[in-house]
Amino acid sequence: MARWEPAARERLQKAALELFVANGFDETTVADIAAAVGLTERTFYRYFTDKREVLFGGQQEFRQGFIDGVTAAAPDARPLDIVAASVAGVCRASHVFNEERRPYSRLRQKVIAAHPELQERELLKMASLAGVLAAALRERGVTEPAASLAAESGVTVFRLSFEHWIADGSVETLSEIESAMFEVLRELPGGPQ
Amino acid sequence: MARWEPAARERLQKAALELFVANGFDETTVADIAAAVGLTERTFYRYFTDKREVLFGGQQEFRQGFIDGVTAAAPDARPLDIVAASVAGVCRASHVFNEERRPYSRLRQKVIAAHPELQERELLKMASLAGVLAAALRERGVTEPAASLAAESGVTVFRLSFEHWIADGSVETLSEIESAMFEVLRELPGGPQ
Repeated sequence: MARWEPAARERLQKAALELFVANGFDETTVADIAAAVGLTERTFYRYFTDKREVLFGGQQEFRQGFIDGVTAAAPDARPLDIVAASVAGVCRASHVFNEERRPYSRLRQKVIAAHPELQERELLKMASLAGVLAAALRERGVTEPAASLAAESGVTVFRLSFEHWIADGSVETLSEIESAMFEVLRELPGGPQ
Repeated sequence: MARWEPAARERLQKAALELFVANGFDETTVADIAAAVGLTERTFYRYFTDKREVLFGGQQEFRQGFIDGVTAAAPDARPLDIVAASVAGVCRASHVFNEERRPYSRLRQKVIAAHPELQERELLKMASLAGVLAAALRERGVTEPAASLAAESGVTVFRLSFEHWIADGSVETLSEIESAMFEVLRELPGGPQ
């Protein structure tokens, strides 16, 4: 696994999180964040539209990972299998959800949990991801409501797995958690209590 | 079916929506809403904490409907069956989702769709409903992650059914839509594409 090489965007994200944790989200300014890594406010805004957004950087790439997984699935794959393959691919391959990044993700979630406006932003990102996934499934000919239900199910599994991954004391990889959780989801309709 | 008898809360909600549609959400004040039904601002705040909240009134009762459905399910019912019964009960019995209220719900959704801060509030309400449902399932002894997955699935079916119900030209009842959608969900793991 390649070492994580921080570029300007990642350095800003890391500095922002450290400042939010140390001084509080409301008390930290964009100028503070930029100054902490020797950059200007102007450079900050080249990467992020506002202070909230610094906690949600890399969304484009994140979404694209899910879409690529849908596109790559076998032509005769069923909707939930397509989504499962897509979620598994993101969790396995991404350089965002590896061990080195788990402490960052943990701290980030604590800041989000403490601010309803950040929780709301996160929910909007997840809702938007589900919309994008459903559209990618429809592109492949999956009909509604199966496309939306499968997409929402995939995002639910991803979100709950991520919560589990960053929980205190959690040691399994995101891939292991996600794959076990997808199995539970698959067995919900017919499985025993 | 009993005729819908508007009380103060409902009259405020109705007046608020009319003003939001006519004059815009941002342009309407709490004083305007209260005045429109001959009440004081003070009375408004007895029912709603802020202007956004007037579009989300009755949440307590709404949630309780879901919880009651979980509590009432047969002791040996499986998690997804419990949730399906709960969602079906809310859609069938509620005085909120009947034909008389469909035009109100349609207008309300148009206002929400036009304002990201209202969408975010709505997503937070739905996330909170899923949390409450999962807790009710755990109370019954359902283990994690099945409890959360079943709860999230139920809320997804409810949300997508509701969107379909208020879509322009939609004529089926919410119960009909919801029950058909739950069938599609159940067949996702093993069904054909």
